[in-house]
Amino acid sequence: MTRTSLEHFNCSLARTADIIGDKWMLLIIRDAFYGVQSFSEFQERLGLAKTVLSSRLQALVDGDILDKLQTRPGVDRHIYKLTPRGRDLFPVIVSLVQWGDKWIFGAGKEPVSIMDKDQKAPIQAVGVQARNGNFLQPGDIAFAPGAGADDSTHALFASYHAKRAAGEES
Amino acid sequence: MTRTSLEHFNCSLARTADIIGDKWMLLIIRDAFYGVQSFSEFQERLGLAKTVLSSRLQALVDGDILDKLQTRPGVDRHIYKLTPRGRDLFPVIVSLVQWGDKWIFGAGKEPVSIMDKDQKAPIQAVGVQARNGNFLQPGDIAFAPGAGADDSTHALFASYHAKRAAGEES
Repeated sequence: MTRTSLEHFNCSLARTADIIGDKWMLLIIRDAFYGVQSFSEFQERLGLAKTVLSSRLQALVDGDILDKLQTRPGVDRHIYKLTPRGRDLFPVIVSLVQWGDKWIFGAGKEPVSIMDKDQKAPIQAVGVQARNGNFLQPGDIAFAPGAGADDSTHALFASYHAKRAAGEES
Repeated sequence: MTRTSLEHFNCSLARTADIIGDKWMLLIIRDAFYGVQSFSEFQERLGLAKTVLSSRLQALVDGDILDKLQTRPGVDRHIYKLTPRGRDLFPVIVSLVQWGDKWIFGAGKEPVSIMDKDQKAPIQAVGVQARNGNFLQPGDIAFAPGAGADDSTHALFASYHAKRAAGEES
């Protein structure tokens, strides 16, 4: 995994994928949402070599997704906890799990159930919504250069629209 | 990237990450949502070597995320379109983009704006909701073995709860 190759991209998905776009990192983040905190428990659950787990945990600490905290002063024991930025990946992780539930395992065969503690019932499927709450499909949205679009993003949109106008297919 | 190493995991996230857990594949899927269909346009947008782009497109076809379609009979020209399974990654892609907008670029500086065509306004932030529509935080949910949990999943939950009960930290 190269850690810097997408840094020049003026794109939120590219930059996000640079921070968490590795399957082991996604599984570590999932386990952190479960409440797993110790190196040994991550290792037991994921079956990863210590060196691989160490490098991924460190990358997540470097990416400000996990905090590495000493359990007691003067003792070389640490736990890992999600940062606020890491906790905000909640809809990403849940939507990935739900997609696999639906398309890999199938309805009624999900390995893990995500329950709302208050209602003691499974949660809703995560969806994309308009501001009025209506659920949106891919055809209901449009992409446009945002307030932070740089020249490369404006050029990509211009090229994209020019190609569509010309009906180009390859 | 190893394409098979997580296949034994009884976990929807692991299996999903095995199919799309590569940053280039995520960017190709994003572009497919934009409407990009041709090899040359994917290449222009992503700046990838042809061999790398080919292998990622093929992996997405193999994973039933993209369909590879001949544009005309007898002509060796193809386009790539999202399958129904691929289109269902919509909330995953949108939540990844929104996370980057918030935590990498910052509010009001997003490179790309996702607009609701009907309301001509930016969409809502994707969130996790209870069945009654209430938005949930990580602390509001609990994981439990699902209907499709196998022995390994039940064992992981048992081990997890035993560790919490014992207050073990490393």
